[in-house]
Amino acid sequence: MADTLTLDRVRELDADDPLKSLRAAFVLPEGLIYLDGNSLGPASETALAGLDRAAVQEWGQDLIRSWNSAGWFQLPLDLGDRVGRLIGAAPGQVAVTDSTSVNIFKALSAAAGLRPGRNVILAEGSSFPTDLYIAEGFVASQPGLTLRLQGEGERIEDMLGPDVAVVLLNHVNYRSGRLLDMAALTRKIHQAGALTVWDLCHSAGALDVDLDGAGADFAVGCTYKYLNGGPGAPAFVYVAERHQAEARQPLSGWWGHARPFDFATRYEGAPQIARFLCGTQPILSLRALKGALEVWEGVDMAVLRRKSLALTDLFIALVENRCGDHGLDLQTPRDHRARGSQVSFSHPAAWPLVQALIERGVIGDFRAPDVLRFGLTPLYLRFEDVWNAVEMLRDVLDSGVWQEARFTARHAVT
Amino acid sequence: MADTLTLDRVRELDADDPLKSLRAAFVLPEGLIYLDGNSLGPASETALAGLDRAAVQEWGQDLIRSWNSAGWFQLPLDLGDRVGRLIGAAPGQVAVTDSTSVNIFKALSAAAGLRPGRNVILAEGSSFPTDLYIAEGFVASQPGLTLRLQGEGERIEDMLGPDVAVVLLNHVNYRSGRLLDMAALTRKIHQAGALTVWDLCHSAGALDVDLDGAGADFAVGCTYKYLNGGPGAPAFVYVAERHQAEARQPLSGWWGHARPFDFATRYEGAPQIARFLCGTQPILSLRALKGALEVWEGVDMAVLRRKSLALTDLFIALVENRCGDHGLDLQTPRDHRARGSQVSFSHPAAWPLVQALIERGVIGDFRAPDVLRFGLTPLYLRFEDVWNAVEMLRDVLDSGVWQEARFTARHAVT
Repeated sequence: MADTLTLDRVRELDADDPLKSLRAAFVLPEGLIYLDGNSLGPASETALAGLDRAAVQEWGQDLIRSWNSAGWFQLPLDLGDRVGRLIGAAPGQVAVTDSTSVNIFKALSAAAGLRPGRNVILAEGSSFPTDLYIAEGFVASQPGLTLRLQGEGERIEDMLGPDVAVVLLNHVNYRSGRLLDMAALTRKIHQAGALTVWDLCHSAGALDVDLDGAGADFAVGCTYKYLNGGPGAPAFVYVAERHQAEARQPLSGWWGHARPFDFATRYEGAPQIARFLCGTQPILSLRALKGALEVWEGVDMAVLRRKSLALTDLFIALVENRCGDHGLDLQTPRDHRARGSQVSFSHPAAWPLVQALIERGVIGDFRAPDVLRFGLTPLYLRFEDVWNAVEMLRDVLDSGVWQEARFTARHAVT
Repeated sequence: MADTLTLDRVRELDADDPLKSLRAAFVLPEGLIYLDGNSLGPASETALAGLDRAAVQEWGQDLIRSWNSAGWFQLPLDLGDRVGRLIGAAPGQVAVTDSTSVNIFKALSAAAGLRPGRNVILAEGSSFPTDLYIAEGFVASQPGLTLRLQGEGERIEDMLGPDVAVVLLNHVNYRSGRLLDMAALTRKIHQAGALTVWDLCHSAGALDVDLDGAGADFAVGCTYKYLNGGPGAPAFVYVAERHQAEARQPLSGWWGHARPFDFATRYEGAPQIARFLCGTQPILSLRALKGALEVWEGVDMAVLRRKSLALTDLFIALVENRCGDHGLDLQTPRDHRARGSQVSFSHPAAWPLVQALIERGVIGDFRAPDVLRFGLTPLYLRFEDVWNAVEMLRDVLDSGVWQEARFTARHAVT
């Protein structure tokens, strides 16, 4: 592929891109190639406008009345349905609320509660750490429960047994970008009598997720990566409709009450997904997210997925063609069926290389101990951006600039 | 008192008010008398400016780099210390994070874990409901634990026994505005071998809370009422320094890890208050709160408390003097030692009365079934506002306008 690739050909890909008009919806700093949308998505004009209106008019002028007049109280379920469309969830199954970590706790609690005779939570050792930390905290709080981790070389499907209640899986691995087959794994897990909790942090907004189609049970994910909802924007939780009547979670705050403004003494869980709400939500952050989701209206997720794969294909081909002798080791699967929307390479000098790239306006990120990670996001990235990023990477590698002290001396904070 | 009160005298109180310059820090809609700051505090210029900068510059232009360059990652503990000063907590004991409801769950978990031989959580039946709902969810998740509720006429100090692990108390009651004696109750609870979780939602920023001085163990509270942090701004959690080494809570997400960016497989709780963090926080909402807290710099909480009591004294005296024959029944204690910063009256027509007042630009709120609730907030309210609000209340009552169908037909949503 790379042999036939020229800048002219790359520009043709941009000209033919059915999503090209969406780039204009975003605020993108001049001169920057942003390959970190898998960590924090950029601002859009509608997100900033929605936030400004929420702050200046709704809070500043309308004050307490905005809980009704601006629909603040309905935002978690309203936004939940909007996110639902992007992850293959029919309405009434998704709430936007709290953090991913808190939602994992709720989902694990509810799922384990639906499998009372079983005592094992199974998770990937390579999972994003907070998933494991929450699972660890949850099992420590429940006498008899155990957390079992998939080790390197082990397959989830071989670890299922009559003691496994819940399997917690990362749809796309945060480090390698490896994509799991949700439908196939869910089927095997169900055959073994267990339930699934899917973490979609690195797949929601990155590809054509199909929760309902896969028969998923529970899912969680964040909205500040590929969905571009703003730093730390509230997360989402999905509960399949068939589980909602029986599912219980212990963070039973007033927003999950059937009639919160009755101020009753006893808890009575709201029907359906609202029972997975807990306390009062950060409205300003939710309003930015609401604006961000407007950009997604009308986006065909199959078209998005095609562009994503074309972007990652191009990036891999160009890096291997132009930086092939510098010891970058591809961590992301070549198989489209196993690839998310990021490309990761390992390299002993990953940290200084990422710093040198950032100084030159190509923002990717570093994941300990040795991974360079690049998010190739289809809504606002051009094929020419990929070309230019790889040119910069080649230049950094060839020049040896990354060996200078200012790049090697520091340690990662984020 | 009321006999000697004239508008001239009230204006003198404003002229002599040591906090009068702070009103200019707030965005207050023209023509509105806002007596609902106990539910949602108004915006300040610094809150709006901080939010705008966070959105347009930090997110829009600096993107992922702002986690370090703008101090986003440090916001929960940075703001925690700022809130700490206002509630009598020395640095390192408060984190701003998640919702009040989620923080109650953490505090109850940690407190119960420190009293392993005891199996009762004791709470007020008149508590703000979410406290009870969370306690109910927590005890349901822990075999052997029981929730015991204080009934009407019962005294907390008479309900303590060797089985009580934790007492969950509202410092100021959300409905009546009654203030509990934190120091005295904490002493009695400690004498009985139990620990305290204080809910400060209606006292933080309303009066001179002294957590350290009272020997409190755990506390939670919100920042969107008297602290004016913005709608649904993240809540806070306090853990007394002496408990931090031993206290454990099950929402052990990555923000509470000792080294979150090591991406280790096993959880290792951060030392001190950071262990009460869980997942990624809504930064835009936190940045509005940060701006809001700037208004508090240099505010003497004893001076604040004196003005608060003078405002509520004036309000009670004027209502009784001018609306005394309309059947309003004072629910708030007259005793200063037992009064927060709100005044509540019960009245059979509370709902339409509140609606008629709102239509005339005096915003208080209704709490089911029959309470009119008015927050008298010292930072931005003038004594003349109190005078004018009572004049409007008298006019509404005298005119009978509240009996019109448009006020009586609707039901409360918030």
